[in-house]
Amino acid sequence: MTGTAPAAARELDVPSGAPARVPTPEPGDPRLARLSLNQRTTARWSLREAVDGCVAAGIGSIGVWREPLAEAGLDTAARMIRDAGLRVSSLCRGGFFTVSEPSARAAAHAENIAALDEAAALGCDTLVLVPGGLPEGDRDLAGARQRVAEAVAELVAPARARGVRLGIEPMHPIFAADRGVISTLAQALDLAEQHPADVVGVVVDTFHVWWEPGVLDQIARAGRRIVSYQVCEWITPLPADTLLSRGMMGDGHIDFRTLTRAVAAAGYTGDVEVEIFNADVWAAPGAAVLATMARRYVEIVEPHL
Amino acid sequence: MTGTAPAAARELDVPSGAPARVPTPEPGDPRLARLSLNQRTTARWSLREAVDGCVAAGIGSIGVWREPLAEAGLDTAARMIRDAGLRVSSLCRGGFFTVSEPSARAAAHAENIAALDEAAALGCDTLVLVPGGLPEGDRDLAGARQRVAEAVAELVAPARARGVRLGIEPMHPIFAADRGVISTLAQALDLAEQHPADVVGVVVDTFHVWWEPGVLDQIARAGRRIVSYQVCEWITPLPADTLLSRGMMGDGHIDFRTLTRAVAAAGYTGDVEVEIFNADVWAAPGAAVLATMARRYVEIVEPHL
Repeated sequence: MTGTAPAAARELDVPSGAPARVPTPEPGDPRLARLSLNQRTTARWSLREAVDGCVAAGIGSIGVWREPLAEAGLDTAARMIRDAGLRVSSLCRGGFFTVSEPSARAAAHAENIAALDEAAALGCDTLVLVPGGLPEGDRDLAGARQRVAEAVAELVAPARARGVRLGIEPMHPIFAADRGVISTLAQALDLAEQHPADVVGVVVDTFHVWWEPGVLDQIARAGRRIVSYQVCEWITPLPADTLLSRGMMGDGHIDFRTLTRAVAAAGYTGDVEVEIFNADVWAAPGAAVLATMARRYVEIVEPHL
Repeated sequence: MTGTAPAAARELDVPSGAPARVPTPEPGDPRLARLSLNQRTTARWSLREAVDGCVAAGIGSIGVWREPLAEAGLDTAARMIRDAGLRVSSLCRGGFFTVSEPSARAAAHAENIAALDEAAALGCDTLVLVPGGLPEGDRDLAGARQRVAEAVAELVAPARARGVRLGIEPMHPIFAADRGVISTLAQALDLAEQHPADVVGVVVDTFHVWWEPGVLDQIARAGRRIVSYQVCEWITPLPADTLLSRGMMGDGHIDFRTLTRAVAAAGYTGDVEVEIFNADVWAAPGAAVLATMARRYVEIVEPHL
């Protein structure tokens, strides 16, 4: 990589401000073939801006979030993405299964059906499911986990009917109270394996699972149930807002080489989403974020796929 | 508890500022028999102040930290604690096993031997081991975990010779990068079970393990290997400094009833340490902290022992 220093030195990585370590891959570079921009990485961009940004950067896939999708309008969005020639690697997100009142549960189910419809309309075969946290004042973690299992079961037939796979996302235990009560890949697989592999899978997000004892065995166990591989970094000190505590690959502690090789060995051939919730990343110009993420991806992740 | 409201209303809990829900237990109250103040809960107090605070509050046991112990001097401290009639429930802390250079490893081992000597001098039979995080720039989590196993093995004979048990403390995955690479009670037990149960055990700290899938089974598995039960709370939103993100029991999301019953059912008969790293707790007067922790303990924890 030292031979590329003169070219790379023209650009700075975000948010670190360090000189780029490799040249930015050009559109058409075959190493970009499986890279996907999760919209959350450029949270200030509209869907239109994200689609245009992907095209300009030569990124052929996008992970779409429901909120900007609703702003754009489903039909408009589907046409926009299709016209741009992009794949939709996932729709984020369904889930939030842990509410306990019957009316709230029915509302959550209806939202998930709507999300499945949207995924199908976008030609997207993967709906990411965020399990949800403990309801206010509720300390019954086992009960909340049981409600996740029940709610997932209710989505299996609707998902199959629409040709969309459900991706249960285990979330780092930092979020067990308030975002996601499914805390390990092992636990997500215990849940997914109650259903056919072509309908219920798991999301492997490096931020969430990098620390898990036995994670390589669990990735192998997941096999073709891996419906999405998402990459972002664990950085220290953790930013003050834990929801925004993710970093750019290479800026932290995660061994992307080993995890990525395990995901590839498990048979995963899909897109690789970069999903970074981070205030400093969001404050940077979107094009600079995409350039950095493409560089870090071809340097740290793609060689191991 | 409503019948106690008139008495309780005279005091406020810290750091919440809410009216006390139960009267403060008086010194000699049998419900306080197993309560221990971990010194970290009153971090601004010297050992002298902590010992006096325990005596005033009727708390018969203290978890001692090595830094304030060194400030007081070992002989002075041992006499002070003995004269006050306190037990030392644990010495915090040994560990930090993950360094990789031979000289650093030798220094860490020597520090652990010194900690064992101090525990023995205090008449304390439990040394808490914090595993340590990833060395700077090192992303080999499996390697770091292996070094913990090796370093623990080297401490078994010295610990046995001094009559001190080693307590491996699994730490919440929020600390996997920078404090403790042993992330679950299951993983700590895999490690402890390589050695005799009378020398190598585990620390069950509610903050660290409350989220762990299967934690009740792991507590049962631990049985008499539980050498310390520490209680503090997971609160949201998490305070900005994750090292200080622990809360007062009852202010957050942890089900102390279920965890405490499991620890009791496993056969644990030792002291229960309250260990709270929290800037707001530290800013409160120590006596108010001890009063709140005693109230919360008799309300939320002690009935389930």
